[in-house]
Amino acid sequence: MTVRVGVIGAGIMGADHANTLHRMVSGAEVSLIADIDPGRAQDVAGKIPGSRATGDALELIDDDAVDAVLIASHDSTHRELALAAVRAGKPVLCEKPLAPTLAECVEVVATELAAAARVPFISLGFMRRFDPGYVEMKQALGRGAIGTPLLTHSISRGVGSAPGATSESSVTGSAIHEFDVLPWLLDSSITEVSWHAPKPTAAAGGFQDPQLILLRTADGALSTVEVFLNARYGYDIRCEVVGESGTVALTEPAKMITHGHRARSVGYAAGWRPRFADAYRIELQAWIDAVGAGTRSPLASALDGLVANAVAEAVIASMHRSGTVVAVEVPTI
Amino acid sequence: MTVRVGVIGAGIMGADHANTLHRMVSGAEVSLIADIDPGRAQDVAGKIPGSRATGDALELIDDDAVDAVLIASHDSTHRELALAAVRAGKPVLCEKPLAPTLAECVEVVATELAAAARVPFISLGFMRRFDPGYVEMKQALGRGAIGTPLLTHSISRGVGSAPGATSESSVTGSAIHEFDVLPWLLDSSITEVSWHAPKPTAAAGGFQDPQLILLRTADGALSTVEVFLNARYGYDIRCEVVGESGTVALTEPAKMITHGHRARSVGYAAGWRPRFADAYRIELQAWIDAVGAGTRSPLASALDGLVANAVAEAVIASMHRSGTVVAVEVPTI
Amino acid sequence: MTVRVGVIGAGIMGADHANTLHRMVSGAEVSLIADIDPGRAQDVAGKIPGSRATGDALELIDDDAVDAVLIASHDSTHRELALAAVRAGKPVLCEKPLAPTLAECVEVVATELAAAARVPFISLGFMRRFDPGYVEMKQALGRGAIGTPLLTHSISRGVGSAPGATSESSVTGSAIHEFDVLPWLLDSSITEVSWHAPKPTAAAGGFQDPQLILLRTADGALSTVEVFLNARYGYDIRCEVVGESGTVALTEPAKMITHGHRARSVGYAAGWRPRFADAYRIELQAWIDAVGAGTRSPLASALDGLVANAVAEAVIASMHRSGTVVAVEVPTI
Amino acid sequence: MTVRVGVIGAGIMGADHANTLHRMVSGAEVSLIADIDPGRAQDVAGKIPGSRATGDALELIDDDAVDAVLIASHDSTHRELALAAVRAGKPVLCEKPLAPTLAECVEVVATELAAAARVPFISLGFMRRFDPGYVEMKQALGRGAIGTPLLTHSISRGVGSAPGATSESSVTGSAIHEFDVLPWLLDSSITEVSWHAPKPTAAAGGFQDPQLILLRTADGALSTVEVFLNARYGYDIRCEVVGESGTVALTEPAKMITHGHRARSVGYAAGWRPRFADAYRIELQAWIDAVGAGTRSPLASALDGLVANAVAEAVIASMHRSGTVVAVEVPTI
Repeated sequence: MTVRVGVIGAGIMGADHANTLHRMVSGAEVSLIADIDPGRAQDVAGKIPGSRATGDALELIDDDAVDAVLIASHDSTHRELALAAVRAGKPVLCEKPLAPTLAECVEVVATELAAAARVPFISLGFMRRFDPGYVEMKQALGRGAIGTPLLTHSISRGVGSAPGATSESSVTGSAIHEFDVLPWLLDSSITEVSWHAPKPTAAAGGFQDPQLILLRTADGALSTVEVFLNARYGYDIRCEVVGESGTVALTEPAKMITHGHRARSVGYAAGWRPRFADAYRIELQAWIDAVGAGTRSPLASALDGLVANAVAEAVIASMHRSGTVVAVEVPTI
Repeated sequence: MTVRVGVIGAGIMGADHANTLHRMVSGAEVSLIADIDPGRAQDVAGKIPGSRATGDALELIDDDAVDAVLIASHDSTHRELALAAVRAGKPVLCEKPLAPTLAECVEVVATELAAAARVPFISLGFMRRFDPGYVEMKQALGRGAIGTPLLTHSISRGVGSAPGATSESSVTGSAIHEFDVLPWLLDSSITEVSWHAPKPTAAAGGFQDPQLILLRTADGALSTVEVFLNARYGYDIRCEVVGESGTVALTEPAKMITHGHRARSVGYAAGWRPRFADAYRIELQAWIDAVGAGTRSPLASALDGLVANAVAEAVIASMHRSGTVVAVEVPTI
Repeated sequence: MTVRVGVIGAGIMGADHANTLHRMVSGAEVSLIADIDPGRAQDVAGKIPGSRATGDALELIDDDAVDAVLIASHDSTHRELALAAVRAGKPVLCEKPLAPTLAECVEVVATELAAAARVPFISLGFMRRFDPGYVEMKQALGRGAIGTPLLTHSISRGVGSAPGATSESSVTGSAIHEFDVLPWLLDSSITEVSWHAPKPTAAAGGFQDPQLILLRTADGALSTVEVFLNARYGYDIRCEVVGESGTVALTEPAKMITHGHRARSVGYAAGWRPRFADAYRIELQAWIDAVGAGTRSPLASALDGLVANAVAEAVIASMHRSGTVVAVEVPTI
Repeated sequence: MTVRVGVIGAGIMGADHANTLHRMVSGAEVSLIADIDPGRAQDVAGKIPGSRATGDALELIDDDAVDAVLIASHDSTHRELALAAVRAGKPVLCEKPLAPTLAECVEVVATELAAAARVPFISLGFMRRFDPGYVEMKQALGRGAIGTPLLTHSISRGVGSAPGATSESSVTGSAIHEFDVLPWLLDSSITEVSWHAPKPTAAAGGFQDPQLILLRTADGALSTVEVFLNARYGYDIRCEVVGESGTVALTEPAKMITHGHRARSVGYAAGWRPRFADAYRIELQAWIDAVGAGTRSPLASALDGLVANAVAEAVIASMHRSGTVVAVEVPTI
């Protein structure tokens, strides 16, 4: 009953997932690793006994030694590979985004639907749904700990943006996590958005960073989202939900406190991997458990990925229209 | 060299100020207390040896035993009393707002200017400028601790709104503190605003609460302000300034931590008086020191009060125009 | 290369371990579960596909389907079962204590030594060595973050003691975790101890609770240890190491903060299982990895278990001699 | 009704007190300042309008312009000056210690008693009794927030010791604050003590630093006190009281939190003056209020000072007898 996983993409994300599956997930085995750079695939496979490397992702998907597929390759490949996995009838965990454009997302979701599997094939890698802090908040909301939610405040700060980052990629690559996790938390879809520009940091070198986004959900709640890729001081994710009788918020996680140099301090993670290591591990375990049992995946679905993309398109439209309020339009399928 | 203060208004705020001046401020003496309800004035005076009570505020201003005037009576009286104090040539500390309308503020500022005193007569009671936390933040910004400020996040939550509160009075009575303290912190004027409505709490009983306000300052920084009068859980004031290399924020002040009932907790103040007790005391001491020495008051000026009112008018205009961005127009005098 | 584990003891601890091995540990499989109450063993086995139940622990140890043994049965059985596993040549993870008396510990360690395996058979379940907070502190000490350690302060508080708890069992059952983790943190053995009695809580119903223990390590550092089984408010584990230039301390872990009812609060775990869930999972994974690879276990050894028992005996001796300082004597083997 | 205060000692402490009385205390006036170095007295007086300087402390006490005396000169002068103030029939606030030896304390207390004033003349400067954190803890204990207190943990750390510090002066100069504040908090006298030596820091240059002291109060509670003068990282005062149903503790006070350089941090005070600035101000105001009204001083009394000295003598006796438990003996007067 061990699930043999083929991992596509041997970059930081793919190597991390392969390693986590191999070392910390029960019931999983990494059997095959693909990368367009076969040497990079081999580097990862070389550290995972029993796994092989290939340069051909489509070959991996069809390999008999692969029960399930994990897509962590370049965003531009997600659509094609997800479709191939659906055609092969294999469960697939696709890193966000499902596809670069909304139209492509629609194609993938429609294809999956047509394949008419008992359980959906595709899971989306929105790992925050498995972060213990977010999970605890959702449970608190569910038991009415703060009454009806009225507004939320989210902050996503990072140390530095990747080369080639743009004002738009801040939305599709980073803010998109908020577009998935906030509706999931509030159990209500995002209906309209607006985008606002603080003073840009010189460190961004030209694109708009930080950004402020307002989101309205169907329940009437309003959410503020700050995304700041070049905040420099650390990787800092915050979320507070304000309800009628109180609020719940993520703590800034830390295991150790240091007293030194006239200060009491706790360190920040340098990036998303240490911050969300638990979330990724728990997400992968949940996926493997569902694949192994043939049950519905508790991860975000392809449709969730499509919806997040629709919100991102609306936010970018607002960006291009001086911050006007833009309604989110989710295509019918 | 003792400054003899006449306090106008013997309600909660006036009684508090009289008490603080009498018990905790060096160089001050409360000589006279006025209230339209003379019995209420007498109640306060009865607890302050050497003070007298009157039902006539204008009489108080002209009394020889009054060197300086503190106005803590109803908002609607501020303009008339401030003008009387200017005419009497006496320094006056006026609780915010300077006057209910912008036009009246202009009148007061123009009158003060025409009186051509060596130092301005009027100080405005924006006490946050003397809160140790805000002061420490301003010092940190001044020494470049976080680089250029890019955006700020403020939260003003209270336990419950006063009877008769409206969507507009949330702005003129509560949010107005942010309209003064943020430009003071950033050393940059607010130029445009927009107003946004989260889901309203049932506890507000009809008006819009909470509210979200966006403020743009001349330096390009963007500020989010949440005002929530009926947050119920406590009186909670937060402020974070986000700069190019880091952030500074107020802590939620607490002297004691309790471990009990499966939780580690710190209590919230029930209202603004305990939260800002230090700020009020330090503000009053600074005012008395300046009055006693005949030097320029370090408190907010009448013009600062006028500017805050101009911002409030712009915010209310945005409220009435579906959240449109509204430019702040400060009348020239 | 899957390690098939036989779990002895189907109580809370054993069931928890079986579940963790089955659901969250890579490379492990629970093949057999033993309990003197066969029904209880069956209950646990029934939820773990592929596992069987037995009423005979010695049979489990000799079963061909068992590669490694986990002992989580009553303390009084540890010695006999650990010896049986050594005789069977199978790696064993034994919950603390290794044995109830020091003499029995000596017997187990000597037997293991005589068995002359390439790697020791026995690992002891001192899970704090795998708690991320303790690990981070040890790393900080290792890189000289606070200079030479001079003293430490530890606190172990629980909600309520188990039925039958005694002043002595507080030491052998709870404080013993400190006797292992502090020398491990400081990399220095405990050489002398003294025991002190605060005012006892009525909730303990007769035995001395809380207790205060002073420990001296060979490096000269002094440690205070408070053990309070009936602290009622929550399960609260603290540790601070004070060095020449600063200190490091565990944070009180929390994922979520709640603002409500005039307080800002974070919840406490109700007991050791949620508090140390990560530590147990990481410890089990480390054990399985070592067993699978045939390498030396990174867990505490049988000798570590013996040493902790020697410290416990010294503390109890001090308890019985009015708090006199007692030297720790570790038997030579 | 203004109280004219003569301040003896124009060092850091005396200058601070004179400044606080002049600038922040209602109803006080600094009329005269004495120091054995008249130039130093003049420096302080020069900044306080209306005050004069003298080189003769006894002259100050007898001066008609002095209603009350504040003694902040060298410890060795306290006894003689306090006695002179008693003889002159003037209220006196004496910085701790009351006198260097217990015998001298007895003499002072007996003399004050014989003077048979309606209210005691002497107040002792144990300012922690006025620190808002300690006050809040005492109130919490008083209303039964944590049930019966069972044990306490105190920590007093500083950046560096003064020149000439010794193992004994750590007790009489620093730990003595704990000997006053803990019995005040618990409302129970210290009956026996023991002294313990952690590994000494190299920074102390020869004397025992840090030190650990155990205190037993009459109510049976046990207290641990760490005193570490050369902790280097900051001035850090902690106190936790553990009761039958929970605990209360001082927070580490901070007004601002900084996020920068991969850390979230709050700064420490560099010394006792910023840490206890509020406590000193409130203490001085309380003293002036009592002196002005002719009522009993709410500050610590001469007898409290004597008792704290008796505890210090017992701790030093334990230090000189290898940490033996020593009973506290308070002389009868």
